[in-house]
Amino acid sequence: MTNTSAVIELTKDLISRKSVTPLDEGCQELMAKRLTAAGFNNESMVFEDTTNMWARRGTEHPVFCFAGHTDVVPAGPDSKWHTPAFEPTIKDGWLYGRGAADMKGSLAAMIVATERFVKDYPDHKGSIAYLITSDEEGPFINGTTRVIDTLEARNEKIDWCIVGEPSSTDKAGDIVKNGRRGSITGDLIVHGIQGHVAYPHLVKNPIHLATPALTELSTEHWDDGNQYFPPTSFQLSNVNSGTGATNVVPGELHAIFNLRYSTEINDDIIIKRVTDILDKHQLNYEIKWTFNGKPFITGEGKLLSAVVDSIKEANGVDCTPSTAGGTSDGRFIAPTGAQVVELGPTNATIHKVNESVNCQDLEDLVEMYYLIMKKLLTD
Amino acid sequence: MTNTSAVIELTKDLISRKSVTPLDEGCQELMAKRLTAAGFNNESMVFEDTTNMWARRGTEHPVFCFAGHTDVVPAGPDSKWHTPAFEPTIKDGWLYGRGAADMKGSLAAMIVATERFVKDYPDHKGSIAYLITSDEEGPFINGTTRVIDTLEARNEKIDWCIVGEPSSTDKAGDIVKNGRRGSITGDLIVHGIQGHVAYPHLVKNPIHLATPALTELSTEHWDDGNQYFPPTSFQLSNVNSGTGATNVVPGELHAIFNLRYSTEINDDIIIKRVTDILDKHQLNYEIKWTFNGKPFITGEGKLLSAVVDSIKEANGVDCTPSTAGGTSDGRFIAPTGAQVVELGPTNATIHKVNESVNCQDLEDLVEMYYLIMKKLLTD
Ligand SMILES: [Zn+2]
Ligand SMILES: [Zn+2]
Repeated sequence: MTNTSAVIELTKDLISRKSVTPLDEGCQELMAKRLTAAGFNNESMVFEDTTNMWARRGTEHPVFCFAGHTDVVPAGPDSKWHTPAFEPTIKDGWLYGRGAADMKGSLAAMIVATERFVKDYPDHKGSIAYLITSDEEGPFINGTTRVIDTLEARNEKIDWCIVGEPSSTDKAGDIVKNGRRGSITGDLIVHGIQGHVAYPHLVKNPIHLATPALTELSTEHWDDGNQYFPPTSFQLSNVNSGTGATNVVPGELHAIFNLRYSTEINDDIIIKRVTDILDKHQLNYEIKWTFNGKPFITGEGKLLSAVVDSIKEANGVDCTPSTAGGTSDGRFIAPTGAQVVELGPTNATIHKVNESVNCQDLEDLVEMYYLIMKKLLTD
Repeated sequence: MTNTSAVIELTKDLISRKSVTPLDEGCQELMAKRLTAAGFNNESMVFEDTTNMWARRGTEHPVFCFAGHTDVVPAGPDSKWHTPAFEPTIKDGWLYGRGAADMKGSLAAMIVATERFVKDYPDHKGSIAYLITSDEEGPFINGTTRVIDTLEARNEKIDWCIVGEPSSTDKAGDIVKNGRRGSITGDLIVHGIQGHVAYPHLVKNPIHLATPALTELSTEHWDDGNQYFPPTSFQLSNVNSGTGATNVVPGELHAIFNLRYSTEINDDIIIKRVTDILDKHQLNYEIKWTFNGKPFITGEGKLLSAVVDSIKEANGVDCTPSTAGGTSDGRFIAPTGAQVVELGPTNATIHKVNESVNCQDLEDLVEMYYLIMKKLLTD
């Protein structure tokens, strides 16, 4: 490994573009130029403020796809960073800069691995594809989900997908994500009757009315999980009620809660069980649901085997598949029937100041991505 | 009754002085001039930003005292009023202006009744006193409580006290307040451990931890009340927790609650019972208490009889004594051993735009205050 390798250079080039969500700042154009040279057909799909790219080499099945995002979260003031956030800098074997780990390093590794692979195997089986967006860190309205809608409308299917999210803990590949829990958010307003604390018979205190129901929701046993998923968990993230005055009983209580759920349950069952509890407590309420993604799982199969074996071959690491942690755009790709695995660098510094990626991990990721394509797209 | 009676004129004079808390704007000087002419000795007691007055006619016991305040709550923009807030205006038998009912009308009635009484009974028994402050609507730090401290320090005692707060509902004297519930406020912080909703094993959700305890507090049976007081009531006025983000479990929950309590319980018992409940739920918490006033009651006795009889004689109304409603400065006077009754005009418009007092009620109050002094201070 040298500090001037192909993957390091491309990562630095991408980091220096200040592509804070939903900006792309030419990252995808840079990637498209390289992919065109490697025989890809590129489509830019711009929806509202979001830049997306769908690139494909080949027309046959199976379709192996790299998925990812060129946008990054804001960096905050440079004064908080050791080196400027958008000036990629190598120090002690780590490359620093906003997006280094999440996920411009992965994008660079995908491109370099792909270039090497199509040079070695120009007549590979099936197709190689790229699904790249610039709003993964944002509201995910005009990104991956709309590209998938477009592909579905023309019946263009992905069979296997590697998402470049930083899945690892200590070393590239020690953890891959082979599924994600579902996520649903409830926004609850409980109505009471406002008044002065000195006249309790004239008020209906929404805090008093709501707390027994909130207790029951927070202690509810939703399911036992299964071999891939931990039990479904419920968390109240916000509860607000009150005028600020100590002597006024407020008119309503506002609560927000989120469930991360397994494949043992679904949105409809969750909504029914939550509203049953609220109704049992005879609350006068309104509730608004936000569906953040259904759970998905990529069990034993060709993709997961290829990933596990390629990691072992590339850097000797024994990989642990996991469904823990937050959501990613994999949740939009998996429902089409694709097998989806997330494999990327370590995530300790993502969304923080001094975000960094290990240079050796980047080299190893190039090798892993290369080997996965080789296992899946050659005999 | 004419629109130019002595009590109406003095009320108008007081209203036209914009004495928003803690300002007095010469109201007490105006009253003192009249009281001096009626044989009173006046002491002005200025504490910090607050103007207070202690006036006394006579040196003997028993001491009958009128208590009240010259300050008013802010009026808001004049555009919301039918007539300017500080330009007293009579319309259809009602006198409009900020402070008309709370409580410049009562102050004027006290002065006019006193002038008439000392003219008729220059050699009355005991003493007549005035305890007037300019911060009743404010933080009550430098007002009545400090005057009482001063009097206590020189062992000057009040036997009977009429507070001019607007106690009535439909007609002057239909309700008098012969006591007040105690009031204590708790400011509670429950600590948890903040984190991401996706990692429930790493967080301690303070909302989940607190709601069972809040439910128990809000359903606790504190006492049964007694002949003078309704049962003690507990109200949560504010509950706040959460970062605003839907996917973050907050680190703490903040709750504010208030108890209005009877003479069947006290501050110490309340604090012990609340902390017992919080401890039972094994919460990691801090709590800060604010003591707003102990309960007091003026039961059957000379003062209450004189009040009830005087009302009946003055305007034919059958008076109902009550301990309901909010706090007043009576809570600072009663603990010295004084009997305290609140008697003033109707309170429907207090602290609102278009505050008003009924002109006939003002005339009736003059008569009531006169008769009360006559019953207590003459043979
Ligand atoms: Zn990411
Ligand atoms: Zn008042």
